[in-house]
Amino acid sequence: MSSELAPVNIGLLGLGTVGGGTLTVLRRNAHLIASRAGRRLQVTIATARDVSKPRECDTSGVMLVADPFAVVDAPDVDIIAELIGGIEPARTLILRAISNGKHVVTANKALIALHGNEIFAAAQAKGVMVAFEAAVAGGIPVIKVMREALAGNAVQWLAGIINGTCNFILSAMSEAGSDFAEVLAEAQRLGYAEADPSFDIDGIDAAHKLTILASLAFGIPLQFDNVYVEGIRHVSGEDVTYAERLGYRIKHLGIARQAADGLELRAHPTLIPAQQPIARVNGVMNAVLVRGDAAGPVLLSGAGAGAEPTASSVVADLVDVVRALTTDRENRVPHLAFQPGTLAALPVLPIEAVETACYLRLQAADEPGVLADVTRILADFGISIEAIIQLEHPDDPAVVPVVILTHRVRERAMNEAIARIQNLPAIKAPIVRIRMEPFA
Amino acid sequence: MSSELAPVNIGLLGLGTVGGGTLTVLRRNAHLIASRAGRRLQVTIATARDVSKPRECDTSGVMLVADPFAVVDAPDVDIIAELIGGIEPARTLILRAISNGKHVVTANKALIALHGNEIFAAAQAKGVMVAFEAAVAGGIPVIKVMREALAGNAVQWLAGIINGTCNFILSAMSEAGSDFAEVLAEAQRLGYAEADPSFDIDGIDAAHKLTILASLAFGIPLQFDNVYVEGIRHVSGEDVTYAERLGYRIKHLGIARQAADGLELRAHPTLIPAQQPIARVNGVMNAVLVRGDAAGPVLLSGAGAGAEPTASSVVADLVDVVRALTTDRENRVPHLAFQPGTLAALPVLPIEAVETACYLRLQAADEPGVLADVTRILADFGISIEAIIQLEHPDDPAVVPVVILTHRVRERAMNEAIARIQNLPAIKAPIVRIRMEPFA
Repeated sequence: MSSELAPVNIGLLGLGTVGGGTLTVLRRNAHLIASRAGRRLQVTIATARDVSKPRECDTSGVMLVADPFAVVDAPDVDIIAELIGGIEPARTLILRAISNGKHVVTANKALIALHGNEIFAAAQAKGVMVAFEAAVAGGIPVIKVMREALAGNAVQWLAGIINGTCNFILSAMSEAGSDFAEVLAEAQRLGYAEADPSFDIDGIDAAHKLTILASLAFGIPLQFDNVYVEGIRHVSGEDVTYAERLGYRIKHLGIARQAADGLELRAHPTLIPAQQPIARVNGVMNAVLVRGDAAGPVLLSGAGAGAEPTASSVVADLVDVVRALTTDRENRVPHLAFQPGTLAALPVLPIEAVETACYLRLQAADEPGVLADVTRILADFGISIEAIIQLEHPDDPAVVPVVILTHRVRERAMNEAIARIQNLPAIKAPIVRIRMEPFA
Repeated sequence: MSSELAPVNIGLLGLGTVGGGTLTVLRRNAHLIASRAGRRLQVTIATARDVSKPRECDTSGVMLVADPFAVVDAPDVDIIAELIGGIEPARTLILRAISNGKHVVTANKALIALHGNEIFAAAQAKGVMVAFEAAVAGGIPVIKVMREALAGNAVQWLAGIINGTCNFILSAMSEAGSDFAEVLAEAQRLGYAEADPSFDIDGIDAAHKLTILASLAFGIPLQFDNVYVEGIRHVSGEDVTYAERLGYRIKHLGIARQAADGLELRAHPTLIPAQQPIARVNGVMNAVLVRGDAAGPVLLSGAGAGAEPTASSVVADLVDVVRALTTDRENRVPHLAFQPGTLAALPVLPIEAVETACYLRLQAADEPGVLADVTRILADFGISIEAIIQLEHPDDPAVVPVVILTHRVRERAMNEAIARIQNLPAIKAPIVRIRMEPFA
């Protein structure tokens, strides 16, 4: 059965966490994979910075080379799996593999988000495939679902917990009631946050992944520069606690939405209703909620990172590529879900034009008339209030934390209202604003 | 672009809820679908019991015929979408379509569960595809995820909320604190339960879907007869309430697991931890949680039924089939995930050999020594107790409801222990036993 077709030869770029995990999964489940794919998938060559270093994964039968160009140029390799990450030399290696007529599987979200248009054009011209399931949300098959399972849908919006570090930190702040800085230190100790965590906690990584998902959803070219990005540094333990009292959880989300006047592309902390299943996705787990006009909301969740979850997606891509090796080019799944000629430069809204409900936290002096002033300013900007709560300040009885939940309002109006409220003499600290999404 | 390839002609069997929804989605999103598939998908012929009946969906340009054989025999039709349901004439029509060399898309779970082996063998022999995403969990792409996205994994277990009627009833019992019978009547009034609801509430429908999922997970032939089936009639409002007090929700689950000594295939009410995201999947929504050895747990949830969610899956299958029309047979995704020659008749455990933790509810006379007797019997059968709670009986002060949560135990031992406890003179009503799953 599975011996009828010739084995497919794979060249691995990188034997680190994901590369090693991929080799391990391909070996451990070799029989199952061959029973599904109808042929064997074998890694014949792999690159590693130090070829003599002892490794956890079994590299027997794999030629280890220090030079990655020896892998992408190897004549008997059918598919290159790029698992080194970063922009260079990954970009050059992938382009070289493509020009050698090899198919590529990659887990490199930054590269796809920033250089995917160039890479896919090269692949299209050469008639090869570039698959990238592992680039977004680790072991969760969100690329496949967006590109294939929702092919009959107009996607209305999607929202994803797509950065495990942010989700770990916000979940731990919720569980322990701790503040951002101490949880970050704990996350770094556990290896869930980098020594320099800014790439994750400032939202860049989530924005890369959102860039990819938005293209698949709406048929637009990749455009990281048009994503509004905000991280989680300004979210305090108080905000997490107050949000929960009001029936919400704070999650860092990547959000893409087809609004009436343009597309919204944004990554920022968000209050979401606690009873939503996605609100229960905690720790380093990821989740993506997509709403199609026919399917309705579809939620996918699972491990967003890690050696084997990511390897699971790499292997799924390898099997997909293997199945399509002899498929006519025009019948393959297009890289960005839509046929290249049909991608459209739909207008993307600046964040000022986006409408959301908001959570506001004010530190007000405990004196009469402050609430009247605040609500008057909100009314002046046409902002309706859903709830307003005065709380006890944990340390300072002279200052009253006031939490306001607003109805949906355009960001520009909210910015102006916040600026005016901030100028009230009774307001004693910078106003915190966190957007809200009802997912309704 | 999308005009380069000839349109694909589709014949629809059935213009009811799902058939009408499919036609509506294919028309409304025709441009998007063509932009993704690279060609147009058009329904050219459809069958309807009464061709002159006015319909909600736009049938202009579609030849309506009363005789379904006129559809499966139509020479210019490439793909048949079977959306009439039931065993006959659906089975005969699909086999005829296959023998005519046409590909088939179906939403018919009962037919696939009971006759899928025959249908797939015929399709394999003829070299055509039979796609059935819509047969399980409506708009949730669980078939695609199992067959393709998890191709690198050994599946360890899966558990699904795959019957919307059961989930609606159990959710409503939880929210309203009502009892089974009154919620069932409400579900029937709302159209969420049939006039004769036994197919759903006795677990048959869930068992059909589980039959399909288990084959995809483990590479076994379809075998409905080996599924242990239990419905929700015996779950009382009290059980729902007590489970919640203990931190659990009761869901009707289809479960398939690779245990040490065989496969478990079972559909029954189950206590699951309330903090799990799947425990928050309420109402008519469906969800499937699959654990792969590499991917870890992957949760999918969404609309499990309804015209357009089901149509979303039908259209996704149509696009998949269109893409693979010219693919070599051996490179297509196998019907049951594994190449036909590799399906294995793995042993399925009888329910008596399955191990689970259990929730037991006893109605005991309020007299000394009862708990001692009960716990002694459990100990005699090697059953460890995780928690034991005595409650107030809502109506009868002479009777004490006792809820016991056990650790994992083989069903045979639990059956014998229950029989012995039931015989104690102090036990005043039939003992309720609901299995538990930790999802850990």
